[in-house]
Amino acid sequence: MADGHRALVGTVTEAARVLCDWGSTRLRAFLEVGGIVSDRRDGPGVAVAGGEPPARILASVLAPWRAAHRLDRVFLCGMAGSRNGLVEVPYVRTPAEVQAWRRGARRAPAGDIEVSVAAGIATENFHGAPDVMRGEETQIFGALRLDRQLARGCRLIVLPGTHSKWVLVRDAHIARFQTCLTGELFDVLCRHSSLLRAGDGLEAGEEGFEAGLRAGARGDLLASLFEARAAQLIGGRTPGWARAFLSGLLISAEVAGMARALESTAGEVTLIGEPALAALYLRALTDRGITAHALDGDRCVLAGLHELAAADERG
Amino acid sequence: MADGHRALVGTVTEAARVLCDWGSTRLRAFLEVGGIVSDRRDGPGVAVAGGEPPARILASVLAPWRAAHRLDRVFLCGMAGSRNGLVEVPYVRTPAEVQAWRRGARRAPAGDIEVSVAAGIATENFHGAPDVMRGEETQIFGALRLDRQLARGCRLIVLPGTHSKWVLVRDAHIARFQTCLTGELFDVLCRHSSLLRAGDGLEAGEEGFEAGLRAGARGDLLASLFEARAAQLIGGRTPGWARAFLSGLLISAEVAGMARALESTAGEVTLIGEPALAALYLRALTDRGITAHALDGDRCVLAGLHELAAADERG
Repeated sequence: MADGHRALVGTVTEAARVLCDWGSTRLRAFLEVGGIVSDRRDGPGVAVAGGEPPARILASVLAPWRAAHRLDRVFLCGMAGSRNGLVEVPYVRTPAEVQAWRRGARRAPAGDIEVSVAAGIATENFHGAPDVMRGEETQIFGALRLDRQLARGCRLIVLPGTHSKWVLVRDAHIARFQTCLTGELFDVLCRHSSLLRAGDGLEAGEEGFEAGLRAGARGDLLASLFEARAAQLIGGRTPGWARAFLSGLLISAEVAGMARALESTAGEVTLIGEPALAALYLRALTDRGITAHALDGDRCVLAGLHELAAADERG
Repeated sequence: MADGHRALVGTVTEAARVLCDWGSTRLRAFLEVGGIVSDRRDGPGVAVAGGEPPARILASVLAPWRAAHRLDRVFLCGMAGSRNGLVEVPYVRTPAEVQAWRRGARRAPAGDIEVSVAAGIATENFHGAPDVMRGEETQIFGALRLDRQLARGCRLIVLPGTHSKWVLVRDAHIARFQTCLTGELFDVLCRHSSLLRAGDGLEAGEEGFEAGLRAGARGDLLASLFEARAAQLIGGRTPGWARAFLSGLLISAEVAGMARALESTAGEVTLIGEPALAALYLRALTDRGITAHALDGDRCVLAGLHELAAADERG
């Protein structure tokens, strides 16, 4: 009986693995036991770790799981592979398909754990300038795994966020992409500019967002930005209205600018991201007559990390 | 001899007056003796005064001059007339000509000095949204005093700065204007965003500025902004290049956005501002085939404060 119980525990323990999306602002770690996500823990992003060695942060996030399971491998994507991450993983260049990306991963010790860290992707953007991603490629390869339709022909995938990515996928290869500063700019303007008066709240958010969407389509972003301030100074608007206006304005300006750049790309757009954010982008795209559908970002990143783990476990 | 000397000093003292441009970030005070600027002193802006009462800041800036002169009147424009300034002066609404603007000024005691503070102007911008200026109207009325040609017909005047103003002047009236966040956004991005890596210097500034000018004309500002970061990450560019790129990008995007908004406005553009900054805007305008000439911002603000002082001394 005692041996039987120990064998059972041993079996469960054997199948446990950890999948991590470690970005600039947040570490999200998923524990999979028997192929099923059974727990999730968050930690600080690579950019906000405040000088603490990444291996130590990872160890402390994993500690409760290690007490209960034998975790012999951890799979990571995102800024974990940057210069300030666990191990610097060179970028794979476009056009990049999933095999080349998997081969680009690096194994490394992190304290007493062995980790596999995914490569980022480097490209020339739609204007021939250099551009990079770390993390979004994992969501994209995950989406291709989840929806085989996406792997056929030419597709435009948009991943909204701190640094939004507009990605052309051609025959299952990441062909080319461009990054927009949208999320970071929203954050910097809310925290450090003169655009929002003291006070906050979300009153009139819907109305402000709509007004921002309309303004963003005009193509004079630097002028429209100031309207957020003037609306509070003499237009009777609240900081909540202005904050929503900024959100709508920036999303709409991103979509307008990129839609112009990508006029040649017909067909439906695939959004990958956090559902509430993807919903805002869906509205901005629909306003321009662009058809789109959204995939959940967490599902995609887990599917992408499964691609990484499957290759690693085979190799 | 002694009496003759005292009489001479008395005459000089009688004619001394102080003209101030008190903006968000800086106070610039000019001492005029016998109609000629004989000294200049700077102080903190209204937004950076750190809670010190504006009247006390003004008194300390003027103190050395008061030791030598009898200053019975001080004329101010800019944020001195805002809620956080010396005295809140209501906005004059467009269309606004110089007489209505002068009537809008407020006299007030500031400690033991009497001050006259100019009104700002409120408008509906080119999209019908509220917009405001405090200080630029003084430069504009000064420019109209210096160059009577500007007072005829329809003119487009651009005042680059923290909050750039694009102003339609029709038959010597400020008819309508729009503000762009350009200068503030440049500052906020340089200090608070991920776009500039550590290190600085002005190496490759010219090349970066040119690249920024080209990128800004494309109409996808949020995408172009990220190029500053990627150029340092994998393009071998320095922080100095990237800083100049951002400057060229934002100026060019401002000009492109406003030129689209103002397609109907033919004719030469008048720039009013600090000469080094105006030179950058001249290049961006010329790149778009727009003819422009520049007037010195200090000369214009002094001429505008003369308009204010003349009315006041008559009244």
